[in-house]
Amino acid sequence: MYSLTVRDHMMIAHSFRGEVFGPAQRLHGATYVVDVTFFRRDLDADNLVVDIGLASQELKDVLAAFNYRNLDDEPDFSGINTSTEMLAAVVADRLADRIAAGGLGPGATGLERLSVTLRESHVAWATYERTL
Amino acid sequence: MYSLTVRDHMMIAHSFRGEVFGPAQRLHGATYVVDVTFFRRDLDADNLVVDIGLASQELKDVLAAFNYRNLDDEPDFSGINTSTEMLAAVVADRLADRIAAGGLGPGATGLERLSVTLRESHVAWATYERTL
Amino acid sequence: MYSLTVRDHMMIAHSFRGEVFGPAQRLHGATYVVDVTFFRRDLDADNLVVDIGLASQELKDVLAAFNYRNLDDEPDFSGINTSTEMLAAVVADRLADRIAAGGLGPGATGLERLSVTLRESHVAWATYERTL
Amino acid sequence: MYSLTVRDHMMIAHSFRGEVFGPAQRLHGATYVVDVTFFRRDLDADNLVVDIGLASQELKDVLAAFNYRNLDDEPDFSGINTSTEMLAAVVADRLADRIAAGGLGPGATGLERLSVTLRESHVAWATYERTL
Amino acid sequence: MYSLTVRDHMMIAHSFRGEVFGPAQRLHGATYVVDVTFFRRDLDADNLVVDIGLASQELKDVLAAFNYRNLDDEPDFSGINTSTEMLAAVVADRLADRIAAGGLGPGATGLERLSVTLRESHVAWATYERTL
Amino acid sequence: MYSLTVRDHMMIAHSFRGEVFGPAQRLHGATYVVDVTFFRRDLDADNLVVDIGLASQELKDVLAAFNYRNLDDEPDFSGINTSTEMLAAVVADRLADRIAAGGLGPGATGLERLSVTLRESHVAWATYERTL
Repeated sequence: MYSLTVRDHMMIAHSFRGEVFGPAQRLHGATYVVDVTFFRRDLDADNLVVDIGLASQELKDVLAAFNYRNLDDEPDFSGINTSTEMLAAVVADRLADRIAAGGLGPGATGLERLSVTLRESHVAWATYERTL
Repeated sequence: MYSLTVRDHMMIAHSFRGEVFGPAQRLHGATYVVDVTFFRRDLDADNLVVDIGLASQELKDVLAAFNYRNLDDEPDFSGINTSTEMLAAVVADRLADRIAAGGLGPGATGLERLSVTLRESHVAWATYERTL
Repeated sequence: MYSLTVRDHMMIAHSFRGEVFGPAQRLHGATYVVDVTFFRRDLDADNLVVDIGLASQELKDVLAAFNYRNLDDEPDFSGINTSTEMLAAVVADRLADRIAAGGLGPGATGLERLSVTLRESHVAWATYERTL
Repeated sequence: MYSLTVRDHMMIAHSFRGEVFGPAQRLHGATYVVDVTFFRRDLDADNLVVDIGLASQELKDVLAAFNYRNLDDEPDFSGINTSTEMLAAVVADRLADRIAAGGLGPGATGLERLSVTLRESHVAWATYERTL
Repeated sequence: MYSLTVRDHMMIAHSFRGEVFGPAQRLHGATYVVDVTFFRRDLDADNLVVDIGLASQELKDVLAAFNYRNLDDEPDFSGINTSTEMLAAVVADRLADRIAAGGLGPGATGLERLSVTLRESHVAWATYERTL
Repeated sequence: MYSLTVRDHMMIAHSFRGEVFGPAQRLHGATYVVDVTFFRRDLDADNLVVDIGLASQELKDVLAAFNYRNLDDEPDFSGINTSTEMLAAVVADRLADRIAAGGLGPGATGLERLSVTLRESHVAWATYERTL
């Protein structure tokens, strides 16, 4: 199995609801360093998992909908705890939609899985992995 | 599949038995930077894999039994080569016991797997992964 | 010259005022991984620059005033652009006050300088360095 | 499942063929930081996945065939796009051959899988994983 | 003293002349992860050392002249050993020229120094620092 | 000013004396990731600060006297707290002696300063810098 990973980041504000979150119930924020890994069994005709340039651009486009925003004000996340693990899944699903729509080119039909890791600090990160 | 990782570290002394270990047969030591990853299929009611605060505290408690100790003098490791990979398994098993005992709260019943990585330097690390 | 560095982090929300900030004029947030370096010419009687435990605790206490907060709502930062470089200076000054008040113990009188680095992502960070 | 990882690096020149590569069609180069992970279900008699010293030496030997070379001039890669993901597979396969030939000692028969990650920058890396 | 650092990278081919370089006399290549640090005594009116966006763009423009090239074929480096430390100085000097030409805006007149670090692997890097 | 840095590591056991050290008074250990930086005003005839190969070898030789040892048993450190900052100075001084003895070649006479950083974990490190 082959995989290729590209990295970018986003900076957001949000707050959490529930006593388990303690002081994180207050409005605060995070930098998420985002690693997206694309998996496929065989390489394409160019010997690639996916074109790094295209993959990086699609990731940047997906992150633009989060970047420099207060997620508490985004209709998509109204009343939802935007935990690191939940955001990893949203980023993964949005990338999966773009791949299905051809955003990574016709060769990307060979992709089998996708994982998204959001690093919220030097001591904590979360991953969501799904099939394509 | 979702996962969440927390990081901590421990500093121990030990020695190895067997010619394969060369100079590491002498009493020496290591800093292990410890990454614990918790896996589950679906998030809990708070949109979490596990509460980061609880997970970090349980990890710190488990590492306290190793930290600032000479493992050669610990009854649990008498006559045993406390290799990086073996210690990763011991940390994982002790965390698994704590999870089973409710240390990560009732929501942690959804956890499926656990992996523990011990980084002994910038050029070597070991991982043990097990089901829960 | 000797130095010792300890690392911690904080997660905050804020917004910027001024066209130069572009989309960062919106309310957003950041994780700052914070490295504090203490400098001194000679080691103390214990062969230390400063006690790591005390230094880490003082840093944690200083960061607690920022952590999990919206800096736009903090009276200290009213109408001020809380840029990474400016926050590095505030953290450094508050640590310097604590050192002067004896927070790092009597041996800390030998400290000459202090630098604080705030890493806002994997591709950008800022530092403020001052004398003590 | 246990695993052990060792890290080394190689510095090579190469060029790519195909419009998808854009400016990378020109002769350029890369440092690949190489992480090799060995997997096995149970530890050997010394409580090891594999001897770190032997593993590091075998990896260094394999990388020597690439290091400080222009891959465009190597017969093995004539007319082939030596992408990061393709090189990861070549390194993995050559290591697998050496393991089969006894390069990691008789205990290495317990190894089940091997993965090789080549990091080409701080924002992109590729992995190939195979059975042994 | 304040400083701000931005990171980017470039991928080049080159060779060295002189026995001291051993196998690096052959045509090979490198990824350089490039960190540029801007120093100034006081922040500008926006509380910045320099605009991160502008600084990142100027760095990208400077690196474009090196990126995906064989430095042995570049007239600027004809007959010159393009060592990591020498390239750090060239990047720094070119950035200094752009700053003097107003590339970082009028506020950048407050900048006092510049340092450029080129990381060629996980175990070696070089820095050049100069006044502005 | 130019500088070049090389990285290696060592793994040692030791204990501390003094109540300030708390549990670190027990015999324990550490991995120190060691970064040595060489400074000089002008490059040598090969456009180098220092030959990376020679510098790495000298560093490895210096670290061999510490590596895989219990520092409490080493005559050089009898009754001495081998703190991270103190060990950084010892490594720096031993490297300085080797440079003076010609270990880095005749061109190394241009070196002006040396700094040694010992990273004991992902959250703490110490540096000693001296003139040559």
